[in-house]
Amino acid sequence: MAKKSAPDTTRRSEKSRRAIYAAALELVGEVGYAKTTVEGIAARAGVGKQTIYRWWSSKADVLLEAFLDLAEQTAQDAGQEPYATIPDTGDLAADLKAVLRATVDELLDPRFEVPSRALAAEGLVNEELGRELVAKLLEPSLQLYVQRLRSAQKTGDVRPEVDPRIALELFVSPLAQRWLQHTGPISYEYTDTLVDYALYGLAPR
Amino acid sequence: MAKKSAPDTTRRSEKSRRAIYAAALELVGEVGYAKTTVEGIAARAGVGKQTIYRWWSSKADVLLEAFLDLAEQTAQDAGQEPYATIPDTGDLAADLKAVLRATVDELLDPRFEVPSRALAAEGLVNEELGRELVAKLLEPSLQLYVQRLRSAQKTGDVRPEVDPRIALELFVSPLAQRWLQHTGPISYEYTDTLVDYALYGLAPR
Repeated sequence: MAKKSAPDTTRRSEKSRRAIYAAALELVGEVGYAKTTVEGIAARAGVGKQTIYRWWSSKADVLLEAFLDLAEQTAQDAGQEPYATIPDTGDLAADLKAVLRATVDELLDPRFEVPSRALAAEGLVNEELGRELVAKLLEPSLQLYVQRLRSAQKTGDVRPEVDPRIALELFVSPLAQRWLQHTGPISYEYTDTLVDYALYGLAPR
Repeated sequence: MAKKSAPDTTRRSEKSRRAIYAAALELVGEVGYAKTTVEGIAARAGVGKQTIYRWWSSKADVLLEAFLDLAEQTAQDAGQEPYATIPDTGDLAADLKAVLRATVDELLDPRFEVPSRALAAEGLVNEELGRELVAKLLEPSLQLYVQRLRSAQKTGDVRPEVDPRIALELFVSPLAQRWLQHTGPISYEYTDTLVDYALYGLAPR
């Protein structure tokens, strides 16, 4: 992220960039997506509007990057690297449970919750933004599950005819729906249960 | 639904009630929940504001009832009774697939889609409305799955230690998330697959 040339300018830029991310996330959490403007973000961040337009083309762009950065920061603060891949210890259930527990922590982090919810809400009614959120934020993380499930198919832990892109939804979507729509509490016990049900099925073996 | 007494007044009331429901659903789809007002609904329905306040206490109340009515109408137009219970033919997979296929039809019906999405979006950021939507619209239909899964536990088709309220999320939540967040296409084939994965599990048997 940091640029090599002109260290003073870079430090100043880095500071502005952080201030802009923080302002964008605060504003969208407070007033919602529709009422968040590039002007409002600039004013709160203490920068000129042109500073924002130099780096980003729209408020949607600023917010998407601010979110990617927030997810990185949250993971680092929790002493984790943001997952670039899902661990493969050979124990599929344990690996999925570990990643879902980290997701529970993230979803319950208030820094994450308020702006995420505001952006997700806009994504429901604004199809263009919704598709961008999915393509840039959601789908890349879902593809990590696809890879882990494919590797489990190679070791015989998942049936070969299963479509991994659908299979992952059995444990990811319930958590997403409870969190998004307040349809129930979320906890480690809950996500552990989802993984067990999905892997072993509801019907007796 | 039709009242017995005073046929003329009743017919007039019934007509106003339908006009108010239609106006409320149209408006929320067009301008979103926040900008929908009782005044706007009244103007579009061609009734006085007081007519609305005589029957409902808030725009949230009007919209919730308009939705319940829409779900009933949609089911009737499709030649179905709205499900008061999930069929129990003794074939759990077939019963769940039938109900989910009917849900796919409903979610793809444009009359349903636009206002549902607007109301769901508001429910994400307006926790009070969100909880009311869940309690009045979503949870009652989820409880039908709980009953069907309990009956399947009695016949030995679902493991006795499974919590039915969590189990149903394995096939309901993926469909909800794909529809709400545009994370993937929805079809009969997709929901059939969800039921098979949930019942028999991802791991080999």
